Amino acid sequence: MGDDEIQAASGGVIVESKEWYISAYAPEGVPTSDHLKLRSVPISLAVDSIPDHHVALETLLISVDPYLRARMTGTEDGLYMPQYNLNEVIQVSGIARVIESKDSNYTKGDIVKAFLPVAEFAVLPSNLLVRKIDPTPGISLTDYLSSLGTPGFSAWVGIEVVAQPKPGSNVFISAAAGGVGMYAGQLAKLKGCRVIGSTGSDEKVKLLKEELGYDDAFNYNTETSFDDALTKYFPDGIDVYLDNVGGEMLEAVLNHVNKHAHIALCGMISQYNKVWTERYGVRNLLNMIGKEVKMEGFLILSYLDRFPDFTKDMESYIKQGKITCKHMIYYGIDSFLESLGSLFSSSNIGKVVIQVKPLH
Amino acid sequence: MGDDEIQAASGGVIVESKEWYISAYAPEGVPTSDHLKLRSVPISLAVDSIPDHHVALETLLISVDPYLRARMTGTEDGLYMPQYNLNEVIQVSGIARVIESKDSNYTKGDIVKAFLPVAEFAVLPSNLLVRKIDPTPGISLTDYLSSLGTPGFSAWVGIEVVAQPKPGSNVFISAAAGGVGMYAGQLAKLKGCRVIGSTGSDEKVKLLKEELGYDDAFNYNTETSFDDALTKYFPDGIDVYLDNVGGEMLEAVLNHVNKHAHIALCGMISQYNKVWTERYGVRNLLNMIGKEVKMEGFLILSYLDRFPDFTKDMESYIKQGKITCKHMIYYGIDSFLESLGSLFSSSNIGKVVIQVKPLH
Repeated sequence: MGDDEIQAASGGVIVESKEWYISAYAPEGVPTSDHLKLRSVPISLAVDSIPDHHVALETLLISVDPYLRARMTGTEDGLYMPQYNLNEVIQVSGIARVIESKDSNYTKGDIVKAFLPVAEFAVLPSNLLVRKIDPTPGISLTDYLSSLGTPGFSAWVGIEVVAQPKPGSNVFISAAAGGVGMYAGQLAKLKGCRVIGSTGSDEKVKLLKEELGYDDAFNYNTETSFDDALTKYFPDGIDVYLDNVGGEMLEAVLNHVNKHAHIALCGMISQYNKVWTERYGVRNLLNMIGKEVKMEGFLILSYLDRFPDFTKDMESYIKQGKITCKHMIYYGIDSFLESLGSLFSSSNIGKVVIQVKPLH
Repeated sequence: MGDDEIQAASGGVIVESKEWYISAYAPEGVPTSDHLKLRSVPISLAVDSIPDHHVALETLLISVDPYLRARMTGTEDGLYMPQYNLNEVIQVSGIARVIESKDSNYTKGDIVKAFLPVAEFAVLPSNLLVRKIDPTPGISLTDYLSSLGTPGFSAWVGIEVVAQPKPGSNVFISAAAGGVGMYAGQLAKLKGCRVIGSTGSDEKVKLLKEELGYDDAFNYNTETSFDDALTKYFPDGIDVYLDNVGGEMLEAVLNHVNKHAHIALCGMISQYNKVWTERYGVRNLLNMIGKEVKMEGFLILSYLDRFPDFTKDMESYIKQGKITCKHMIYYGIDSFLESLGSLFSSSNIGKVVIQVKPLH
């Protein structure tokens, strides 16, 4: 939407805004068009129709993250996330441009990070805006949803706060080319660790080794046994594991842990699409006693007091070129269902983001 | 053995000493007479036959603990304990009387705690003796293998160092009437927690509630569902779980944990008698993320620097009558196999000990 159009819109135009809502819960499997539907609704962007302390927004970027899946099962299972209400528009983290403001802190043209509906336009209370984003050389808008957003913060908390590998530690990261994994591996390398990643394609193995600085990586889809793979890649055992997948890989890791290993449970994407009784049963937790392993689940919401420390660290790394960011960009609001599904295949590389509108 | 006999023995008599050795590993199931065998061997207790820095001992008490099972599988699986060598006499923690000494630190008649063979007599290097035991009012010899020994120390480390429940915490302890469980529950009560135990018979439920101070207890053998039992006994959820059983009960607990719950893995007696691939698969580890649970396996060997603190605490509690000790005493060296097997049934109450000889 160009300036002219914004003018027109804020001057009284009612726009048609496409938005994604949940029409049925999906307790199992990858959500499909049976569960997530697109509709078009009229939204008035007329200045007179916007309540005080509200802003009218045009969505630019939408962050597509695995945790969203856990809000669509219909039960507060596993991740204990609050469920979306049926017929409610899906809420996500995103970047938007202010096109009309009834809050003195925001003016037309401001770029903001916010909890947004998966929609082209929205009128929101300004207290749902997370921050205003000022253009910073070397930092792209997408970075704010990626290295400086949920995935980067998850990686930072997992490595710097929870698992705390030491220089020389043998670190394993699953879903290593995913949003969290790619930053976690780079942060561990910056701490002087030996870092190995697992991922779902040969292309991503190459990326991890050649662009993201991993010491080595393997394609779990072509390994006949996870156990054999870990024997090969960790001849000295595993000191720290950042788990993004759960299930069979977690079990295999527990057969290769060193004394006092630390396992940070960040996500279990291999298990989200199953009801809990159908999830993979991990049979070797007894190893945790003999090896005195600590396993810890975490959610970044509990570490928000560390967000400024993280931001300082990560911005510095980005500006110094010490962190490489890979994004998988989908274009247009229509791509939401496809982009969400891509998280559960081996198809995407890096952080999945939808670019809803041109950024300039 | 009376003084006259000791005199006779140390004067040059060769005694027949019955001892238990391992003739075959038992990868699965409860070890039987196919694996553990009794034999009688001649031992010279003649003073001239005892090397320097050695002592001749008459065994009084033997500690029978679940971890012994893990040394009989033939593989360093799960608990990663060193395996007994085939045809080797089983080594345990025990109490013995010195009947001859070639070490100036020990004299005939001293009572010592030591790592002993499961045998009636032994000649050992004196550096295998753990400590000399002076008679202390209010503390029995059995206590040194129980409240003041491995089970008491395991309970203390699990509660005081690893899990650290707070006053008012909801604490669950499995195998609550076993060697570790009974002390763990009492220690948690002394910290002001609400403590519930699971155990294998109605008689032991009664013991836990009426003698060991548990707030409540249930018989897992008569509950149709562990999940339902935990719903009933933990309406406010579980903050701390000291796990002595593993498997299905651990899974059930993970459906009832509160935010930031702490699970201390002390043992998994329900799983020891199976090869790892046949062990119970825990399907709901994903809950550890949503509830941000910390699960930690521990071995007391890593906490030996805290043994003096533990001893001071526990001796004080015992003398003040704040800790009740229950022992299941088997009599005679012949009972070793039966007493070991009792650990894996619901039959024993409290710490299992063999009294090999009369204590006076």
